[in-house]
This record gives sequence, structure tokens and C-alpha cells, in this order.
Amino acid sequence: MNFKELSENLSLAGYEFYRRGWVMGTSGNFSAKISDAPLRLCITASGNDKGALDETHFLEIDDNSDVLQGFGRPSAETMIHLTIYRMRQNVGSILHTHSVWGTILSDVHFENGSIEIEGFEMLKGLAGVKTHEHREIVPIVENSQDYIALSHVIDNVLRENPKCHGIYLRRHGLYTWGEDVAEARRHIEIFEFLFEVLGRSLK
Amino acid sequence: MNFKELSENLSLAGYEFYRRGWVMGTSGNFSAKISDAPLRLCITASGNDKGALDETHFLEIDDNSDVLQGFGRPSAETMIHLTIYRMRQNVGSILHTHSVWGTILSDVHFENGSIEIEGFEMLKGLAGVKTHEHREIVPIVENSQDYIALSHVIDNVLRENPKCHGIYLRRHGLYTWGEDVAEARRHIEIFEFLFEVLGRSLK
Amino acid sequence: MNFKELSENLSLAGYEFYRRGWVMGTSGNFSAKISDAPLRLCITASGNDKGALDETHFLEIDDNSDVLQGFGRPSAETMIHLTIYRMRQNVGSILHTHSVWGTILSDVHFENGSIEIEGFEMLKGLAGVKTHEHREIVPIVENSQDYIALSHVIDNVLRENPKCHGIYLRRHGLYTWGEDVAEARRHIEIFEFLFEVLGRSLK
Amino acid sequence: MNFKELSENLSLAGYEFYRRGWVMGTSGNFSAKISDAPLRLCITASGNDKGALDETHFLEIDDNSDVLQGFGRPSAETMIHLTIYRMRQNVGSILHTHSVWGTILSDVHFENGSIEIEGFEMLKGLAGVKTHEHREIVPIVENSQDYIALSHVIDNVLRENPKCHGIYLRRHGLYTWGEDVAEARRHIEIFEFLFEVLGRSLK
Repeated sequence: MNFKELSENLSLAGYEFYRRGWVMGTSGNFSAKISDAPLRLCITASGNDKGALDETHFLEIDDNSDVLQGFGRPSAETMIHLTIYRMRQNVGSILHTHSVWGTILSDVHFENGSIEIEGFEMLKGLAGVKTHEHREIVPIVENSQDYIALSHVIDNVLRENPKCHGIYLRRHGLYTWGEDVAEARRHIEIFEFLFEVLGRSLK
Repeated sequence: MNFKELSENLSLAGYEFYRRGWVMGTSGNFSAKISDAPLRLCITASGNDKGALDETHFLEIDDNSDVLQGFGRPSAETMIHLTIYRMRQNVGSILHTHSVWGTILSDVHFENGSIEIEGFEMLKGLAGVKTHEHREIVPIVENSQDYIALSHVIDNVLRENPKCHGIYLRRHGLYTWGEDVAEARRHIEIFEFLFEVLGRSLK
Repeated sequence: MNFKELSENLSLAGYEFYRRGWVMGTSGNFSAKISDAPLRLCITASGNDKGALDETHFLEIDDNSDVLQGFGRPSAETMIHLTIYRMRQNVGSILHTHSVWGTILSDVHFENGSIEIEGFEMLKGLAGVKTHEHREIVPIVENSQDYIALSHVIDNVLRENPKCHGIYLRRHGLYTWGEDVAEARRHIEIFEFLFEVLGRSLK
Repeated sequence: MNFKELSENLSLAGYEFYRRGWVMGTSGNFSAKISDAPLRLCITASGNDKGALDETHFLEIDDNSDVLQGFGRPSAETMIHLTIYRMRQNVGSILHTHSVWGTILSDVHFENGSIEIEGFEMLKGLAGVKTHEHREIVPIVENSQDYIALSHVIDNVLRENPKCHGIYLRRHGLYTWGEDVAEARRHIEIFEFLFEVLGRSLK
């Protein structure tokens, strides 16, 4: 898909996420890969309302975060997107959202280092998962405003958890990805559903 | 109704269920009976977003799950639909959803074997129920990826609970049915309302 | 307003209430007064989806529940509407909804005989209430399928609570009213907001 | 922006807030500054449904609350808007909403004098906040129907908390502001998200 089509698919995801309260107050950022070599991304510009995106709110950037197309500047979290694309060759889209239940769980389980999810049919919505007996580990990373350091931490976490489908920044938000926008969006919905189940089951 | 009309009614149900968070991440499946002899079903193809269905996302199948019309393949859970249609002659539609409160209740009450609901006016929304004093038993079945075995279990559960309006697969989702799409959809709404009441009342 | 205009205003209220989950599974019923002498009501026919009402889902009835216009039959709860209109001369519309939080509160506070609400600014949304220090008593009536008996009980409760803005049928739903559809709808929203505050504050 | 454009932006905010349940039952009020010298505000007239506003539901007023344009009367809370505009020179819009979680928190934390929020990435959505380590103090003011006294209290609270982004009236609602409607609306969303996180984490 080209820049325009990717921005349309990401805008539609943003509309739904906003409706559900996962990208409140202009939070969150979304990207999709236009090409691999050279790497070209379609990514949300910083600071827009994620529930009312259109093509003009997206940037085309290269692997150095330089803007090749579009208005505005990339968010500081663009480095995290680039790190994930570098570490996971088959990823075509990355979505980052902020939800109430995820925020709560990332704090409750921070000492354990991860949110563990096991025994739910909905896990089969994660790519490659064939049974509800699957145990999904969502690593929790301490939040930071030093995005260079954070990118290095995420690089390590991705190496240590080659099968994970998402990473949670503590009291911040979820990063998940997929081979295309549809799969990444499905992963967001699956994780948020399961976070709500776990969150509502906390004593 | 014909294939086209049934697919429209099921799509509309899917749109509402998605909005309420009951078919997240492409989960759930819906069917309606086109004819009895020979048995012909209109059923969702596997893996589509249930909030954005149209006629092209449905299949016409026979009682052997063979596809007579449409694109894609039937979901593995089609066998459960066929079992329910075989066991309940007057059923015209079957809806399967995944909700947060149902998932939680199915786990909390698993040892009891069922979710029991009694004393609520909303029970009168279930076909044939005339008073809030009715006691509805929703059998809970252990989840499994062996759909042949699961279909046999559900066959037995339906024999043992001739009056039940729904069955819950543990930590998975609800199957309910009705004489047509409207009644099955009403049953989903009634059960989900009551699951939320029970779930929010858990200590 | 005439039958058509009243049915439009009630349909719009139904659409919003359905979206918020207060009239699930075709539950609830709505009415508005067309004329006083002779008494003529515009009221929902039994059993329709309250989120998708139009003029064809309403009946014009007299004070004997006889249908003067429209298709279908009045719900059994029409008697409760007639009782309220008889007891409260200035009422122009009555709305009846079923919510999760109301259902829970009506059970928790049943032994006390009422839901008491005091100290919230939102109380000022009830007609005639000028301060948050107001104490609103919502009498809770035991649910019953004997609507004649229930109407007599409600008649008494209205005599004993001349200032109440609503009555709750235990584990069933809220009846509230107003001088017109807009005021009755405002009362529903105010009560549901406050029920959610009280419900979420239960230990 | 002129009166018409400001009323459109405020109407759109109202539509979203109503959908999320933050301005139920005609509650809430919204304003934006048209000019500084002389002070001219575009503000909601009292008592309308905040989910269905258009230009006709707004008034142009001066710093004496006198109506220069539009139909209806200003709400009693207009004095609070005027106090905030007087105390904060760069404020271009003020939004006042009533939410379930805010109402609960304002009561739970009333004795402490404020809702304290610290350690969440979403705090960066408040103007000028650069890190999740920021500690936001939302002063809680006792509710009152004496709006003159209340305005004096708020005047003092704003002097004592020069950096706060919002004030909560106990069991009543939130006042927040921004340099324009977009920023004030972002602040509402940020506060409501964080109130829900704190509220759901209460033991």
C-alpha cells in the first residue's frame, strides 16, 4: 500500500481507538511501513487528535526520522517505532495506545516485570497463537523521557522475548505490531480486551 | 428470508456487538438458517472484523460444512453451530460473542458448572420466560481446541438442559440462539446485561 | 405536540438510552401525553427494539388502555403509566429504563425501602431542586408480574412521596417523568449518573 | 476566531463529552474568549442539552455577564468563568464537566484538599508538562450555591496554585482551561482519563 492508503487505514484505527478511550487527549501514535529498502514509514505527526486523523496528519519519514513528506514533526517516540521495525523484519505496522486498564495493570505487575496472560480463547487473536493454553508475556518497561535510552531497553527486551506480541511502558501505554495495519489493530483489540478482563479481576 | 437478507441482519447485529466490545479482534461468529431440508446456513467466514460485515463476509454452507456460496472458509466453530441446529429444531439463528463480564463469570462459576440467574425482570427477554422469578441456568463448558469433542459435549449439555437459552465456553464466549436473528440478538443483549449485573456484584 | 412529534422525541430518547445500555433486549417503555381531557397517550407498543424506534412503533391509547391508533398492543406496564399520569397532573411524559447500576442499587437498598441521594450538584437537574443539599428519595417497590396490584402499590407510593421524581421497581427498572419528554429524559440521565456514582462507591 | 467559529468548536467538544457521559442531563458549561479588551466571551446559555449544541445555544457576554448577543440567560456559573479569565491572562477557553469518576474522587480526597496525580505519561498532555514525573495538584473546593462566595474562593485557589491546570468543585465537577478550545478540550480528556485510572485503583 502507498502513503495515502496506509494513512487512511491508520486514521480509521485511530477513530475506533478514540471512541473506546485508548488515545485520549491527542495521546498515542501509529505507523506503517511503505517500503523496506530503503526504509520508509508513514507515521502520525506529533500532537494531533487521534480520533480525527486524515492524510494531512501523517508524515513520511526515513530510518533517520527525517521527514520526506507531510507537515509537522515526528513525535519523540518515533525512535521506538524505528527500533521495533529494525528488530522485527516482518512487522508492517506499529500501534501505540494508552488505556485505563493497561495503565493500571502495568503498575500492579511492574515488580513481576511483565503482564502474563494465559488460558483465554481471545489469545488466539494474536498472530501464530493456536490455542487458549498459550501463555503470552507482555514485558513491562519502566517509563522514561530519555527516548534514546528507552530505545536501547526496548531493543534488549525484544531480543529477550522473541515471541512477544507487545511491550508495555509502565503507566504509559502499549506498543503492539503486526504484518499490516489490520493485524496490528487486531492485536490492540485483543490486548485491551484481555487487560480489561485481568484488571476487573484484580482484588 | 434469503441469504442476502439474513447476512444483512447478522451484519447489523455485528455492528452493534462490536460497538459494545463483544466481538473484539475479529472474534465471534454468527449464523442463520436459510432452509431446513436440506439444511442450509448463512454463516460468517472465518477471521473478519465483526463490526464491519457485509454480504461478502458470509458463506452459504450445508450440514457437512461444505461451502455452497461465498468466499473464505468457515470457522472451526461451525461444528458447534451445526450441533445446536440439529438439537434444537426451532432455532433459526445462532450468535456467538466474547464479552469481558461473561469471560470473568464463566471462570468464577466454572466449579459450579453453570451461571445461575434468578429474580431479574430482564429474564423475561428470554423466549418463553414469563416472570422475573424464573431461574435461568447457563451451563459452562470447559474450553477446548478439539471442536469434534466440544460438539459432543455441547450435544450432551443441550440434552441435559432442554430449557436453557445459552451455553458458555469457559474463558471463551457465549452461544445463544433464537427462532430468528432478532430473537437471538435479543438473547445476547439480555444475557450480557445480566452478566454485567452479576459481574459487578461479585465481591 | 401531536402524536407524530411526540413519537419522534421519544424515539430520539430511545436511541440515546439504547446506546448507553439502558433499554437492552427490547426492554423499557416510553410515553407522552397528547391531551388531558379526554386523556390520550402516545406510548411504545410492546416488544420493539427501543434503539430503533419510529412512529410505527407507537400507539395512541385512552385512559382504558384501548388502542385508538397504531399497530401492536400496549405493554402490560401501560397500567403503571396511567397510574402515574392520574396521580401527577402536570406530568407530560413518563420514561421507564433498565440499567445495570440501578438494578444493583435497587437490590442493595431494598431493605431500606429507597435509594437516598444527597449532596451532589447533579441533583439540581431534577425539576424544582435548587441546591445540591437536596435529599432525593427514590422509593423501591418490590417487582411483580401482577400489574394491577403493582399499580395500586405505586399509587400509594406516589401519595406517600409527593415530591419524588422517580420510583424504582426492584431488580427491574426506573420510572421517572417530567412535564415534557425533554424533562423526563433529563431526569433519566440525572438518575442514571447518580446511580453510577453510588454504585461505584459501594464497598 | 469569531463567535460563530468558537460556538462550533465548543459544540463539537460538547458532542464528544456527552457521548462519554461527562455532561449528562444538560449539565456542564463551556466558554471561549472572543476578545480581551474589552472582554467578550462566547458561552453556553443555561439549561441546554450539551450533546446537541449549535450556535443558537450560545451567548456573547461582557465582563459584567451582560448578554450582547444570543437567546437565553447565562448560567449562574458564568461568574466562575469570569474569575478564571481574570486570573489567568493567557486562557482562551474554559470547559466545565461532570463525570462519575471525578465526582467520586473529589469526595474521597476532599479532606486532603486536592486530587494529586503523579507518575503517569498522560500528564504530558497538560500544557507545559514535560515529564511523567510531574506532580499535578487539582485543588478541591467545597461546592456551594453562593456563586459570589465561590468565585472569591476560586480566586484565592488560583493565586495559591499558580501552576494548576484545573479545579474540582466537590461532588460537582471539573473546571479546566487552555489557550484555546482545543487545549482546554485536551485537558478535559487528560484529567478524565487520569481520574478514571485513580478511581478504578481505589481500594
